[in-house]
Amino acid sequence: MTDIDLPEAPPGVPLAVRWDGETLRLLDQRLLPQEVRHDACTSGEDVFTAIREMRVRGAPAIGIAAAFGLALSLRDDDHLAGHGWLERLDECAAWLTTARPTAVNLAWALRRCRAAAHAADPDDGAAGRAVLLREAEAILREDLAICRGIAAQGLELLPDGTRVLTHCNAGSLAVSAWGTATAPIYAASALGRRVSVFADETRPVLQGARLTAFELQAAGVDVTLVTDNMAAHLMATGEIDLVLVGTDRVTANGDVVNKIGTHGVAVLARHFGIPFWVACPSSTFDAATATGAEVPIEERDAREVTHLGGVEIAAPGVKVRNPAFDVTPAELVTGIVTERGLVRPPLDAGLTTLLGGGA
Amino acid sequence: MTDIDLPEAPPGVPLAVRWDGETLRLLDQRLLPQEVRHDACTSGEDVFTAIREMRVRGAPAIGIAAAFGLALSLRDDDHLAGHGWLERLDECAAWLTTARPTAVNLAWALRRCRAAAHAADPDDGAAGRAVLLREAEAILREDLAICRGIAAQGLELLPDGTRVLTHCNAGSLAVSAWGTATAPIYAASALGRRVSVFADETRPVLQGARLTAFELQAAGVDVTLVTDNMAAHLMATGEIDLVLVGTDRVTANGDVVNKIGTHGVAVLARHFGIPFWVACPSSTFDAATATGAEVPIEERDAREVTHLGGVEIAAPGVKVRNPAFDVTPAELVTGIVTERGLVRPPLDAGLTTLLGGGA
Repeated sequence: MTDIDLPEAPPGVPLAVRWDGETLRLLDQRLLPQEVRHDACTSGEDVFTAIREMRVRGAPAIGIAAAFGLALSLRDDDHLAGHGWLERLDECAAWLTTARPTAVNLAWALRRCRAAAHAADPDDGAAGRAVLLREAEAILREDLAICRGIAAQGLELLPDGTRVLTHCNAGSLAVSAWGTATAPIYAASALGRRVSVFADETRPVLQGARLTAFELQAAGVDVTLVTDNMAAHLMATGEIDLVLVGTDRVTANGDVVNKIGTHGVAVLARHFGIPFWVACPSSTFDAATATGAEVPIEERDAREVTHLGGVEIAAPGVKVRNPAFDVTPAELVTGIVTERGLVRPPLDAGLTTLLGGGA
Repeated sequence: MTDIDLPEAPPGVPLAVRWDGETLRLLDQRLLPQEVRHDACTSGEDVFTAIREMRVRGAPAIGIAAAFGLALSLRDDDHLAGHGWLERLDECAAWLTTARPTAVNLAWALRRCRAAAHAADPDDGAAGRAVLLREAEAILREDLAICRGIAAQGLELLPDGTRVLTHCNAGSLAVSAWGTATAPIYAASALGRRVSVFADETRPVLQGARLTAFELQAAGVDVTLVTDNMAAHLMATGEIDLVLVGTDRVTANGDVVNKIGTHGVAVLARHFGIPFWVACPSSTFDAATATGAEVPIEERDAREVTHLGGVEIAAPGVKVRNPAFDVTPAELVTGIVTERGLVRPPLDAGLTTLLGGGA
């Protein structure tokens, strides 16, 4: 890994999750970019509500929040100081999982915290609760290290003057800090390289316009917002050097499951001879799924397409398709940036080597 | 040309321009799709305002409206019954041109009407005004014939069961009736063929969501609205058989200037092996411009991207690019449907033959 000295977070960007040793503060991302507000969470209930109401978003950020939610659920439960606290823990973990049942990182973080607690003294609730807090802090610290690792590994893709196109938000707001796709961008900027970014607005939910444009701007990175259908024009006019996106899942063969529109950008990049890179933690690899064809594509509410801010923007009653994700075939991917290193084609072999080669 | 019997307009679709021999009625397209309202225009002033306020849109529709506007300007000018009416005509034509100075069809229609009037008796204002009305009616009738010609010529692209993707609005609402890209779709439907259409919403101005989805739905055509970034996913999953779009200008080499996003759709179609066809009147060919590289691409107001219905949908103050058009290179175009026939590659030679081959 490149040896660079990065601050804990990119300057200027509000953190999605803040922990001061006592209180968890979650950025209410539904209010962005118009309002930047952190809500204090002092109980498991507070965290449960924040996750269910989607104030916190981004798989890693949800996992971190849930881990603290579990610790907070038991922290002030004084009558559970002794025997019986493990039953209560299991109840709380099961309940927190229901806040967003489809969130893989949420379930993963809760399983991990539960396992750590079960390894502690079953008769010492106070010690168990301390274990829970330490585990949540470890998850937060590890996520930060992973993102900084991606930042360091991806730096070589961004020489001075690079003009990047990104899609959706794989940014600091989705994780502890730094983000995934944004991490090398922030790092290059922090090193004084001139980097400019075109952010696809990313219809229908506009994560690019609301979140990516917001956080890059807050960090002082040169960012320009475009509608999704402008990418080909920008590539044709020679204004893009690199595409860099995040991903929700990479299957065993290297197919990339990510926000709707990613596949189209990858096809355009190939056509115009522009490198198409994906940035993600190595934990995003799903070795159990052979190809993207096995991944069901969720169709979301038609109102996301037909309405914006409560206002109808389409022909009333029109039929709508709204797939939330698409699958970019491995052959369109130039490479994958992870905290452990860069993976280049053939991606399936590269991923196996990478995952076999470390912790 | 295929010999088919088409009604004057696709059933159900409100006409952009209606003329009953006395009154011009213009559909206020700013109100679509929520409200369908025709405003009666009984004077040149009325038409001028409708054009300037963009109630009427679409190059051919604007040209037709302007021609009637000129006729109406002079119709009730009784004191000009005799000598002097040609000066008044020239004044009115010059004034109407300023309603939308960049609209090529507007200037073209006014020049044509003015020339017809100047060929009439300079001392007989009544006869001259009749000439103006007849010329406006001829422009309307010819536009209708052209669109029905495109419908007939394009029919062979749409066998039973065809699933079409279109972008922006090259529909009935932009012309007298039938549209350009929509004309073969309406015609195939009228002949009982099952045709389904995916309409790109077409950010930033959403002509696909507001107009194309509206008019196809009104005509009973099976239409599904998607965001622009869903096209690749639909093509990858085998749901698109044909792309059919309109164009604002085709240069001598066959490059296609059309709404932003068209180039991207053409690249995707090529990648997925899907035919990419363009439909337009033969008058859209601009033989004087060698290639699309010579066409300046207008950048429009950033607020089109950052705001929707007065509501801010992006990070406040973010920098924006907003090119209104892009250029699809001729080599990505499978063919062009015109009222005179289909043009296939090499497009430059095909266009020359077509334009040289008849009035």
